[in-house]
Amino acid sequence: MSDSVQLIPGNSLITETPEEGRALAIKMSRLIIKITQPDAAVRERLRPIYAEDAAMLIAIGQTVAIEFATIAAANNYWKK
Amino acid sequence: MSDSVQLIPGNSLITETPEEGRALAIKMSRLIIKITQPDAAVRERLRPIYAEDAAMLIAIGQTVAIEFATIAAANNYWKK
Amino acid sequence: MSDSVQLIPGNSLITETPEEGRALAIKMSRLIIKITQPDAAVRERLRPIYAEDAAMLIAIGQTVAIEFATIAAANNYWKK
Amino acid sequence: MSDSVQLIPGNSLITETPEEGRALAIKMSRLIIKITQPDAAVRERLRPIYAEDAAMLIAIGQTVAIEFATIAAANNYWKK
Amino acid sequence: MSDSVQLIPGNSLITETPEEGRALAIKMSRLIIKITQPDAAVRERLRPIYAEDAAMLIAIGQTVAIEFATIAAANNYWKK
Amino acid sequence: MSDSVQLIPGNSLITETPEEGRALAIKMSRLIIKITQPDAAVRERLRPIYAEDAAMLIAIGQTVAIEFATIAAANNYWKK
Repeated sequence: MSDSVQLIPGNSLITETPEEGRALAIKMSRLIIKITQPDAAVRERLRPIYAEDAAMLIAIGQTVAIEFATIAAANNYWKK
Repeated sequence: MSDSVQLIPGNSLITETPEEGRALAIKMSRLIIKITQPDAAVRERLRPIYAEDAAMLIAIGQTVAIEFATIAAANNYWKK
Repeated sequence: MSDSVQLIPGNSLITETPEEGRALAIKMSRLIIKITQPDAAVRERLRPIYAEDAAMLIAIGQTVAIEFATIAAANNYWKK
Repeated sequence: MSDSVQLIPGNSLITETPEEGRALAIKMSRLIIKITQPDAAVRERLRPIYAEDAAMLIAIGQTVAIEFATIAAANNYWKK
Repeated sequence: MSDSVQLIPGNSLITETPEEGRALAIKMSRLIIKITQPDAAVRERLRPIYAEDAAMLIAIGQTVAIEFATIAAANNYWKK
Repeated sequence: MSDSVQLIPGNSLITETPEEGRALAIKMSRLIIKITQPDAAVRERLRPIYAEDAAMLIAIGQTVAIEFATIAAANNYWKK
């Protein structure tokens, strides 16, 4: 594990809006891939593989959905 | 990440009805694919691949189910 | 997306019994496949593929389990 | 869908013990496969396929885990 | 289903510590495989297949994570 | 199961910050792989396989997301 990678930007799950919470979910899921594969050159090589593969795009969607569920709960679903 | 993509239409998880919540789950899951693969031409090429593949259709269903779980909780299951 | 597909029969997650909730979970998961692949002929062609494939049957089971979790929570687990 | 299949034995998620709740999770996950593939002969043919395939056994475990989460919550985790 | 398999050791989700809860999650996930494939010789044959396959090890991790979520909730996260 | 592996560092799900909670999720998911495949030489051999495979990296992300959901709930989402 590369200790220099920040895993949660801002070190908080709280966001102003659902939209920002969704963006955080995407970032958090990407940072797990970054810490697991710290070599940027390898990650760049893998990008077109998953971005042009329907099954992998769907799997990315599942991951973001799971991260977002946690963030949404943390923000009490942004209810006023 | 293309910053111009809106991730959550209306920037809210709150909907009037379960039906609208379900439609939002579908849209949110599609927008993750859109932001991951911003090239519309590639997405168009992938569409018949997943739409005619039983395993991928099932995986899409799982993704929508996870998104919907969050939306349903946000709306307190639309209980009166 | 075919706008003519109803995504949640009755537009409600509330059911009288767990058994009806389970049937709703099955229907909701099937309607996602229907809206993603609106061509009935294609869906008919895919049916024997997943119905005779052990891995896909298991994946369908996972999807229904996720949908049912939401429905069960919505009904407070049908506790009296 | 074969309407004659019962989806939840006893039409209840409530069980006396965690052990019975776990058995119910297994039964519920099997009944989804039964309703999706109503032909007993086909199911019998598929049985050795998944029972001797490590990946499918793991996937069955995931399905049961998801069903059990719902049953456990319904029973308030069998706390006294 | 082999009725002689115990599905939850001790017939309880309550453990003294998170560590014991984690061990229980592992045991519960293994017992589902045991009941689905009761033949010990087959299970022994499958062991090196999944233990040397990266994708299957990851899938086992997902299963344990789901089981653990339930156990952790049952124990109120071992908060004092 | 190798009894000498610690499954949860510190035997607690409570962390000071979301960042530490995320690191714990990663460690917990790795320790499941370690206990399932106790041979360090085999794990070292598998590392480049999953770290250079887009689908497996995504699957690792799903696992961490599920573990993190539990840890985040245990910490009440680190709300003050």
